Amino acid sequence: MGIFDESLDQNEANFTVLSPVSFLRRAAQIYPQKIALVHGDRTLTWREVWHRSVAVACALKARGIQRGDTVAILSANIPEMFEAHFAVPMCGGVLNAINIRLDPTTIAFSLDHGEAKMFVVDKEFGELAAAALKQVPADALQVISIDDLQLADGSLVSSDTWDTLIAEGQGEADQIGMPYDALAFLPVDEWDAIALSYTSGTTGNPKGVVSHHRGAYLNAVSNALTWNMGDHPVYLWTLPMFHCNGWCFPWTLAVNAGTSICLRQVRPKAVFEAISKHHVTHFCGAPVVLNTLLSASGNLKQLIQHEVRVMTAGAAPPPAILAGMQSLGVEVTHVYGLTETYGPVTLCAWQGELWDHLGIDEQARLKSRQGVGGPMLEGLMVADPETMIPVPQDGETLGEVMMRGNNVMKGYLKNPAATAESFAGGWFHSGDLAVWHADGYIQIKDRSKDIIISGGENISSIEIEDLLYRHPAVLEAAVVAKTDAKWGETPCAFVTLRPDETLSEAEIRDYCREHLAKFKVPKYVAFVKLPTTSTGKVQKFVLREMAQAL
Amino acid sequence: MGIFDESLDQNEANFTVLSPVSFLRRAAQIYPQKIALVHGDRTLTWREVWHRSVAVACALKARGIQRGDTVAILSANIPEMFEAHFAVPMCGGVLNAINIRLDPTTIAFSLDHGEAKMFVVDKEFGELAAAALKQVPADALQVISIDDLQLADGSLVSSDTWDTLIAEGQGEADQIGMPYDALAFLPVDEWDAIALSYTSGTTGNPKGVVSHHRGAYLNAVSNALTWNMGDHPVYLWTLPMFHCNGWCFPWTLAVNAGTSICLRQVRPKAVFEAISKHHVTHFCGAPVVLNTLLSASGNLKQLIQHEVRVMTAGAAPPPAILAGMQSLGVEVTHVYGLTETYGPVTLCAWQGELWDHLGIDEQARLKSRQGVGGPMLEGLMVADPETMIPVPQDGETLGEVMMRGNNVMKGYLKNPAATAESFAGGWFHSGDLAVWHADGYIQIKDRSKDIIISGGENISSIEIEDLLYRHPAVLEAAVVAKTDAKWGETPCAFVTLRPDETLSEAEIRDYCREHLAKFKVPKYVAFVKLPTTSTGKVQKFVLREMAQAL
Repeated sequence: MGIFDESLDQNEANFTVLSPVSFLRRAAQIYPQKIALVHGDRTLTWREVWHRSVAVACALKARGIQRGDTVAILSANIPEMFEAHFAVPMCGGVLNAINIRLDPTTIAFSLDHGEAKMFVVDKEFGELAAAALKQVPADALQVISIDDLQLADGSLVSSDTWDTLIAEGQGEADQIGMPYDALAFLPVDEWDAIALSYTSGTTGNPKGVVSHHRGAYLNAVSNALTWNMGDHPVYLWTLPMFHCNGWCFPWTLAVNAGTSICLRQVRPKAVFEAISKHHVTHFCGAPVVLNTLLSASGNLKQLIQHEVRVMTAGAAPPPAILAGMQSLGVEVTHVYGLTETYGPVTLCAWQGELWDHLGIDEQARLKSRQGVGGPMLEGLMVADPETMIPVPQDGETLGEVMMRGNNVMKGYLKNPAATAESFAGGWFHSGDLAVWHADGYIQIKDRSKDIIISGGENISSIEIEDLLYRHPAVLEAAVVAKTDAKWGETPCAFVTLRPDETLSEAEIRDYCREHLAKFKVPKYVAFVKLPTTSTGKVQKFVLREMAQAL
Repeated sequence: MGIFDESLDQNEANFTVLSPVSFLRRAAQIYPQKIALVHGDRTLTWREVWHRSVAVACALKARGIQRGDTVAILSANIPEMFEAHFAVPMCGGVLNAINIRLDPTTIAFSLDHGEAKMFVVDKEFGELAAAALKQVPADALQVISIDDLQLADGSLVSSDTWDTLIAEGQGEADQIGMPYDALAFLPVDEWDAIALSYTSGTTGNPKGVVSHHRGAYLNAVSNALTWNMGDHPVYLWTLPMFHCNGWCFPWTLAVNAGTSICLRQVRPKAVFEAISKHHVTHFCGAPVVLNTLLSASGNLKQLIQHEVRVMTAGAAPPPAILAGMQSLGVEVTHVYGLTETYGPVTLCAWQGELWDHLGIDEQARLKSRQGVGGPMLEGLMVADPETMIPVPQDGETLGEVMMRGNNVMKGYLKNPAATAESFAGGWFHSGDLAVWHADGYIQIKDRSKDIIISGGENISSIEIEDLLYRHPAVLEAAVVAKTDAKWGETPCAFVTLRPDETLSEAEIRDYCREHLAKFKVPKYVAFVKLPTTSTGKVQKFVLREMAQAL
């Protein structure tokens, strides 16, 4: 014990757990009248978002949601989805935002595996939720509808609504008002879980990525710093909040008291009109989203008359897209991350002195790299996953991208084996293969985990393979990514049929469509004898080359 | 134990202690060639600062500096002072930056009370250090000189220099090179002390404020967010780094890989020339610094031809200064904090929609308030220090400013009583009295701790009173702040002599000059019978009114 260890302990005055809930309290207290959310003709101020979130948190508590209880949500980017990112953690709950594009069986798997105590469903997805609910025991789950008045159609899967929750907690929220700190709504430990996100992994069943308050706080700040967002950005919700909690952006927008422009569907007309009408300054999206915008009519494109910035990830943005966005007056920030890292944790940091004078093609080539660690990432390397020895920075040698830091997940839920494997050697193994350039920038070349990223969605090739193998006529199957101008990548299936069996490409696709979410259905199917190594392993790199030629 | 507590533990991949050392590693790795420091005709890149800091850290370790050992430094704003903010924490040491304006006895007190194992002395202050060293046991302390080649005069208090340390650690630093994370240089616990800063308190002896890695990390980020600094600011060092570690700005400049322009002395000519020559974007200073700049010649002022931002604290900036800076093209951010809060933790956040249309006087009035909590402060209130009940937000009722959060100190070194008192009720008691306005902004009206802030320096009125009481001719003495156009405040002494004693104002000032640092010597001395309450307590508020009339 030295002199600096004596009588200098933590107490309520000098130590507070890190939690993004604190950012909401601050935004509401300092900018009560500022618009936090715009959804159609509806607006909500930061004070209202605070008050509604407190009311919901109180109602959840009264209904028995406690520390470590999962609250699942199936929703588009609307105000209630945003509020859930605060209200659920405020009562100690863990938010499980579910991908609206999944099939009922996979949704039921999440509800079951995550042991959800409550399921909140946007009316747009009432039918999908109802189908999923048929596959889980009904009594374990409270079902809440979001009755969005901005949406004419859709169906309420329950008469118990988000508004009911607000009404239930209103009285308590009125009493609480606007406190001078958020202590009453913070977890005991910043390591407590804040969110659960299912991600397609190397196995057919999704893995539940568990994130915590500390990481969510830090990555929310990292976003603000990475993008130099400043105060009061106007942020358009093109990125789904069910993708890794919208890369932590609901929390980032509380850090800088920004305005969220909600958007149910990412269609070019709606995007350009929103950018123009609300003077949007920032939005996020996979390169496919950018590509869609670039394909829009000239009239729409002319709606951008001010500085707009886009953050892109999910695949390397092709030079044509980078150049196209630049000509639109949209500055692109290229980032990279995984659900396991709270969203973006690297960025292709601009090196003004070195790059400013280069031609646009060369700049685009440099910018298409995944770059360097973000401000809150503690370590980034490309290394041999067995020896953990970093590869030389020669731009040629392949290795696995590995990260460490506070914005790396707690682990996979109820899956200690996968958790241990992903953290082997004290680094998180991303499963992405990259080269390391002489300037310290990483560039992803391939994926070791057999994930296909299509339109920003992760697709497990193994999930599709498992399905194909279950077809009685199929002997062998392998699925790889094929580069696609629109979607970035798309699944391509190679199938060997059993002797004397016949099956058409269309029949295989129909079979897949029955069992898989639409975006996972292979766009190409080819019948071949699978190339294998001497030990019988399928040579996926050969298939990838074949896929490009299809 | 819930499902989120099982097999989801911390490990090297997903948990790293928060420490500003990580920011240096990142800046050096991503921007190795960027200029980190400019001092006269000398420049150092971020890679060099990393390498030199590693070398010094290794040398300190080899010389026996361990976790929790104090390394004191007496230095102007030069590169070595900046490097010490990283090198000392990197070996587990605690940096005690000492005010160069103090007298030898007070410096000796710090060395002794902080149990310094090493004392680093800039050659400009060799004589001062030598005088202080005469008052401490020599064998306990390694003394290191900074032999700044940019300074012609000065004296080396030791032949053992900063460059010797670098030479000693060079070999190890070469071997370490540029690692992929900073783990080897991080503390085991983020609650470990990083710095010790002595501050004038209510008693004659200074109190040692202990800060920790977690708070330094967070407040460094808070600075970047509060000021929306963006990447690569050019920061002019007008604020002394011995003031509360330059409000954490050495660490902030590693967050955003900025360039530090060093400055030995804050003189208008040097400031304006540096702003122009280096295209300075940011600097900090007490209102007295701003006032000095405004008094400069028109020729000098014309050197500012680009956007410059200044952060000011230490006293409310008078409207004339705010308007003056605006006319110079310098945007003022008004912040407030104490050494106990790592520097600034509140800011007068601009409310564009509400304030943009107001006249300049009204804007200046609003901006002169200390404002609201910064992004990393968890709680701020104005409350009755006894009952802890917040005062009404009426702009009239006085209460004490209180904070809580991770950017509040660990406590006072070897002073559990003062620590407990300052944290009573779970909030840090700032000692500053304020009103709370209806819009939630605080405004400081008075100080309960009898601190006089003169030219940004804290002066304890009680230290001066104690000295005056020790003079044989003095019966009673009380010292208060008097408003001063140049210094903000200046000490004003009221003295009652013993019967039949005579003493002139000049004699009292000479006596003070012998025993006190120059800036603490009362500018005004008046001979009066002290006004007292019925219980005999001196009525300082009466004296403050009398002082204004002098």
